[in-house]
Amino acid sequence: MLVHTINEVRECIKKWKKEGLTVGLVPTMGALHNGHLSLIKKSVEKCDKTVVSVFVNPIQFCPGEDLDKYPRTLEADEKLCQNAGVDIVFAPSPKEMYGEGHILSNDFLTYVVPPFFYVDKLCGKSRVGHFDGVCTVVNKLFNIVQPDYAFFGQKDAQQLIIIKKMVKDLNIPVEIIPCPIVREESGLALSSRNKYLSETDKKEALALSKILFNIKACYDKGIKDVDALSETAYGFLNEHHSLEYLEFRDKENLEQKTLADDNTQVFIALRIGSVRLIDNILLG
Amino acid sequence: MLVHTINEVRECIKKWKKEGLTVGLVPTMGALHNGHLSLIKKSVEKCDKTVVSVFVNPIQFCPGEDLDKYPRTLEADEKLCQNAGVDIVFAPSPKEMYGEGHILSNDFLTYVVPPFFYVDKLCGKSRVGHFDGVCTVVNKLFNIVQPDYAFFGQKDAQQLIIIKKMVKDLNIPVEIIPCPIVREESGLALSSRNKYLSETDKKEALALSKILFNIKACYDKGIKDVDALSETAYGFLNEHHSLEYLEFRDKENLEQKTLADDNTQVFIALRIGSVRLIDNILLG
Repeated sequence: MLVHTINEVRECIKKWKKEGLTVGLVPTMGALHNGHLSLIKKSVEKCDKTVVSVFVNPIQFCPGEDLDKYPRTLEADEKLCQNAGVDIVFAPSPKEMYGEGHILSNDFLTYVVPPFFYVDKLCGKSRVGHFDGVCTVVNKLFNIVQPDYAFFGQKDAQQLIIIKKMVKDLNIPVEIIPCPIVREESGLALSSRNKYLSETDKKEALALSKILFNIKACYDKGIKDVDALSETAYGFLNEHHSLEYLEFRDKENLEQKTLADDNTQVFIALRIGSVRLIDNILLG
Repeated sequence: MLVHTINEVRECIKKWKKEGLTVGLVPTMGALHNGHLSLIKKSVEKCDKTVVSVFVNPIQFCPGEDLDKYPRTLEADEKLCQNAGVDIVFAPSPKEMYGEGHILSNDFLTYVVPPFFYVDKLCGKSRVGHFDGVCTVVNKLFNIVQPDYAFFGQKDAQQLIIIKKMVKDLNIPVEIIPCPIVREESGLALSSRNKYLSETDKKEALALSKILFNIKACYDKGIKDVDALSETAYGFLNEHHSLEYLEFRDKENLEQKTLADDNTQVFIALRIGSVRLIDNILLG
């Protein structure tokens, strides 16, 4: 069922809670692909009822980012959800989520702000304010849907870590279920932004997964030194790639590692032309 | 029942929710007086179950403020609650609320940050970060207790306005019930910080309510000009008083008024020696 207003969602949730049913939430920005589908399937399997939110959240885009051209495919998204057994597709307007009559900024809106230590690195470094927007909208969705479980992909690893930290810090009564990255056969991690890639770009984009898989293979062979592991990346890079970061950090608290261990997560962000792609792998 | 851990509270709440009972929350910093009692009574009357939280929240005190000497009277508080029919007194330790092992700051904790326009004035001007701490702890308490209703005193008017804004902005499923200021016969608004006042100070403290009552009387007589209304205050001030602010603002969005109307709230903060007192009145 496609629903556009907060009140309609609340009505359903209220009824379900009264019946003692469990609720799963899969927050998305739409343009659903098989990565999202894996989250949705997990929720449908685990929970009595599943809500998928489809909302391109304006406050998590930075100036100059792709807010306006971000792919919007609601009709197809709804069909995919219906076939997967989703109970509610919640697709609110920006006005429904943030009201109108004022600029969307922390001058006039309450924000949920993740810890500085978690956002001053990796994607947060280039996307200033991005995770404030993410935490704020996810907090709102949690308050609207009141899910027992919420499903997040490990593809956006820093986001997942920050959401888990928010849930812990604010005592939010929800269990976060991390879901593994879904990849094309080529190794490319699924992402709505892959739609921006030409066929040639797509081949260049394989560098991300190749670099990560190779680092994991080297780690498994016994190389623990992060500098040595990092250096193995350069063989996969060419003039079409602009490496934003390749970092080795703790999978829970994002502290930097100099020696890799089983709790080390490797994060990569790479630009191919104007398209920015991310990927990550856990070494353990 | 006195409870110190989040898990114990959650257990009770879960049971109550299953039985379909409504829950009221009265968040306090303890040192309970008749002002708090009026909130508690309202909750006990309105809700099936009432939780009173007693927590001197470290992150809402600014450097140099009275965190350490803030009055703590848990035994008396518990008795007062028991007599009033409260079901749970929730008195967690700072460690229970914020964990341990790191400094309490936005470097390592997720904060709920109210809009800048609401905090750059009145008490927020001198108490930088205060309302971030308030919103964060109230958000946590809401997530722990999941109340249907939460009761706040109109004495801390800016706080009440900011909490209502937070609830709206973050879609928190709770109804905020504002409760009128309780005053001594003298007119002095009840406050836990009144305990800091000597007998002489207490007489000087009457200036706050006298100024507000007089402004209201002048307004009722037809004076609408804010400058003229402000000037009536000086007759009540002497060398023992240090006026921090006397402001006329909209009761909902805190916009400044030049002409008073029925939606105008008058806010005052006054220092008497080292004690800082606040009060307010609605003109309508």
